[in-house]
Amino acid sequence: MAFPWLKGHGTENDFVLLPDHDGTIHGELEGAFVAALCDRRRGIGADGVMRVIRTEALGEASAGEWFMDYRNADGSVSEMCGNGIRVFALHLVQQGLVDPAEPIVVGTRGGDKTITCDPSTGSGTMSFSVDMGTPEVLGVSKVSAAGNTWEAQDVRTGNPHAVAFVDQLDDAGSLLTQPDYDASVYPEGVNVEFVVRQGERHVAMRVHERGSGETRSCGTGACAVAVATAVADGADRPTTYRIDVPGGTLHVTWNADNHIVLTGPAEIVAQGTMDWIA
Amino acid sequence: MAFPWLKGHGTENDFVLLPDHDGTIHGELEGAFVAALCDRRRGIGADGVMRVIRTEALGEASAGEWFMDYRNADGSVSEMCGNGIRVFALHLVQQGLVDPAEPIVVGTRGGDKTITCDPSTGSGTMSFSVDMGTPEVLGVSKVSAAGNTWEAQDVRTGNPHAVAFVDQLDDAGSLLTQPDYDASVYPEGVNVEFVVRQGERHVAMRVHERGSGETRSCGTGACAVAVATAVADGADRPTTYRIDVPGGTLHVTWNADNHIVLTGPAEIVAQGTMDWIA
Repeated sequence: MAFPWLKGHGTENDFVLLPDHDGTIHGELEGAFVAALCDRRRGIGADGVMRVIRTEALGEASAGEWFMDYRNADGSVSEMCGNGIRVFALHLVQQGLVDPAEPIVVGTRGGDKTITCDPSTGSGTMSFSVDMGTPEVLGVSKVSAAGNTWEAQDVRTGNPHAVAFVDQLDDAGSLLTQPDYDASVYPEGVNVEFVVRQGERHVAMRVHERGSGETRSCGTGACAVAVATAVADGADRPTTYRIDVPGGTLHVTWNADNHIVLTGPAEIVAQGTMDWIA
Repeated sequence: MAFPWLKGHGTENDFVLLPDHDGTIHGELEGAFVAALCDRRRGIGADGVMRVIRTEALGEASAGEWFMDYRNADGSVSEMCGNGIRVFALHLVQQGLVDPAEPIVVGTRGGDKTITCDPSTGSGTMSFSVDMGTPEVLGVSKVSAAGNTWEAQDVRTGNPHAVAFVDQLDDAGSLLTQPDYDASVYPEGVNVEFVVRQGERHVAMRVHERGSGETRSCGTGACAVAVATAVADGADRPTTYRIDVPGGTLHVTWNADNHIVLTGPAEIVAQGTMDWIA
């Protein structure tokens, strides 16, 4: 049975979107199907799958009409993805399902998220800003990689991060493997960010995500990096940092109300129908 | 403009197929379009693109009705792909474009290739055998990786290979980076195979492909490994070797007429239409 699909990415975090407005196409979205679809050799390949479904049809609680039914590449359910939700919002805008002049409320398993559509650059790619909520700034512990050890700031932005400032991004190794960290601070694992300063309110980062390894971009990681850098700088809020990730550029604003807003590009590269026959 | 597409793989060498029987859909297939399609983050993702076109429509010389118009992931034209042509043949069989009971002649820029469809295993995946032509067995030189050095047999199977027998596949490193080789023997670079014996006429291999790095499978590399192992064994022809690659299992027969035949699986996982909008 042919079903509609799209492929898109935000700073090279890439996704297959499955429009299924009334939940009648995919029924219960099977984890094994998602994992097979996301396999980069034996499937189509993506970091995750986002079903585009009405909140009412999914039976979840949200003030938003549309719900981001997000699955990780391994098929497991995930709460939220800061890069993915921009691609999700772009699709809603492109299909005329929401008004881009108004704040867009999207339901996620991590709660309702409010997204604003930035004025178009006219290049096909659009930029969106997502309110990522309130960060927690905790203590300092040590992380090690490639034989080096650094102090790392503990920042929670929906998930745990250890942010280490390094002299050069390669000091952590040419390819990041699992860094050592203090398991008493992070009993459920941690995403580790390595950061270098590039200029005023401008840094570059690499990230090792727990369960995924080194990735091209991490939305909550960019937020944690901005917060850790602002704390180190003693910056007054509101303050905005430019964060270069391997897959592109993000901006993070830490507002006076203590909310962090992640701004970045979203692009949809292909759309069509698919018969899954594997 | 929506065009038809399929995604398939042979031992995890994966391809986007673009049916364009009369050459009217894609016209001159643009290298930039192919490269964008093959990008695993910003596109769909594949090791290469195969346009399915009539020999007559492409204006190439071939005795076969169908021509494998093959492009590498970077958009460059390539002669031939031993794993790809099985996926190409599977598509022709599934669409009823050829008779699977007869040898299938497919035109490639590396000359006409004859493929036979093996009796189905009934699992959805089908197996095909491809006549890969005549190998050249040349001399021995040295290759080095991860601080170790081995003697390597020079075998040409359409492209150059250096085949090194190792004690353990990890001796060449956990991830293969460019091995050192004798540039006077291989002035245009070389694919390097590391091989361990698994049993009688059964080996396992890893491969570093020039220009691509470590890959999940290499058809001409598996052929070179079978030839080098048969030479080392002093095997009488015909002889058949089982070659385990990271992406699956291949069999290679070296026949009395000095031709090598590569046998392996092909699978198509999805098909549909696509609007490329990037």
